Amino acid sequence: MKVGVFDSGVGGLTVLKAIRNRFPNIDLVYLGDTARVPYGNRSPETVIRYSLECAGFLMERGIEVLVIACNTASSYAIEELKKKLPVPVVGVVEPGVREAVRVSRGRVGVIGTRATVRSGSYQRLLKEAGLEVIARACPLFVPLVEEGVVEGEIAEKVVRMYLEDFLRIGVDTLILGCTHYPLLKGVISRVLKGVHIVDSSEAVARDLDGVVLDEGEGTTEVYFTDRSQDLERIVELITGERIQPVLVGGGSQPDPPF
Amino acid sequence: MKVGVFDSGVGGLTVLKAIRNRFPNIDLVYLGDTARVPYGNRSPETVIRYSLECAGFLMERGIEVLVIACNTASSYAIEELKKKLPVPVVGVVEPGVREAVRVSRGRVGVIGTRATVRSGSYQRLLKEAGLEVIARACPLFVPLVEEGVVEGEIAEKVVRMYLEDFLRIGVDTLILGCTHYPLLKGVISRVLKGVHIVDSSEAVARDLDGVVLDEGEGTTEVYFTDRSQDLERIVELITGERIQPVLVGGGSQPDPPF
Repeated sequence: MKVGVFDSGVGGLTVLKAIRNRFPNIDLVYLGDTARVPYGNRSPETVIRYSLECAGFLMERGIEVLVIACNTASSYAIEELKKKLPVPVVGVVEPGVREAVRVSRGRVGVIGTRATVRSGSYQRLLKEAGLEVIARACPLFVPLVEEGVVEGEIAEKVVRMYLEDFLRIGVDTLILGCTHYPLLKGVISRVLKGVHIVDSSEAVARDLDGVVLDEGEGTTEVYFTDRSQDLERIVELITGERIQPVLVGGGSQPDPPF
Repeated sequence: MKVGVFDSGVGGLTVLKAIRNRFPNIDLVYLGDTARVPYGNRSPETVIRYSLECAGFLMERGIEVLVIACNTASSYAIEELKKKLPVPVVGVVEPGVREAVRVSRGRVGVIGTRATVRSGSYQRLLKEAGLEVIARACPLFVPLVEEGVVEGEIAEKVVRMYLEDFLRIGVDTLILGCTHYPLLKGVISRVLKGVHIVDSSEAVARDLDGVVLDEGEGTTEVYFTDRSQDLERIVELITGERIQPVLVGGGSQPDPPF
């Protein structure tokens, strides 16, 4: 069975890894839209357009299930993708919410990019489930992770800057609403002692149980739309596998925004 | 006289401001390519393509001089732009280098995005001028500035993380090779006490003396290729002016990278 996974960049590789751990035999195709990362500060219309293009690329490769491994794209584009694609579409928002509903005693924190928080997608679903929600954007977390600053004094101070309010307010559960954030889970857990941390990438993989059969060759293809210096290093850092990424589009094709 | 200024995003507004301060009467047109920011981690081919598109947009608006207010674009695309455009083209790299050559006693530090540092454009010109150069990428500075964290403990610790080596090595001059960095000048000056800080935006404005006549209506038009939440706030924060930015392209037009 062939499963497609896309993200605006490298963060969705945490989801790819969680899916691979749960389904060792399926064939995985990953697309990271590194030419246009980050989606987190784009307008909703732009995020929808980019998401449809990513999905189209994966459909051409014969995928039978699509996983949106990007919270911003899941927040803005999942309805449009479900409407337009002939295969099941799974986002990262709903699985994370279900896990939070399962473990929370009433007050949930959500962190993510500006766009994810502004979209209100987590807040709406959690409130519908009768939970109290406090959401906060943490725009410095992604650059910290991509710079490899995931432990130490700076990481801890930045985590405190964004999350100390949650301690004061007293949430019992925190949803990591961005696929980069699991790499900061160590520091976040120490700052928010006793708070249940929901890692959406694991929640998504569990959610695929009803949709995906663990059959196939166990292959993994990884595509990016632009090359940054560190792609090989980051792919290995996040997935723990040596996968040679393939470059598509990018430098060779026009994409005028005017 | 109409002068066009482009950058990958909002950082080039520091250059726009410096030019306006020096030439109160010219007409300025700014384009921030916020749909595809940041250029700093794109491939050289992609940066050249994006730069040509930005220049084309400004040429259609009748500019008589083009300023590349982006270090990454200046590093990779200035030769291509000079070749293809029928108007004078000024980048940010050469003016900054000239200023450093004027003030340094021999050992210069350069900081910028990964792409700017990797391009070697500053290093090459400074070495040709007989100076010793130490260059370093500071990928966390742009997100810090855009998050408004330009003073305080976190800003200082991040600045120290990247710049402490310069103290040890003993540079006498530091070029801020990214248009966002002037907003961190206060902290940088404190960390690197006694080091001469070269702010390229001011160097560019001075460099226009031979090219630009201070004539016109004194108008400022500001365009962006995508809307982020904070454009109005950031424009006012950097320029000190209330300018209503105009959105071009973005959501409405296709730009498939595949």
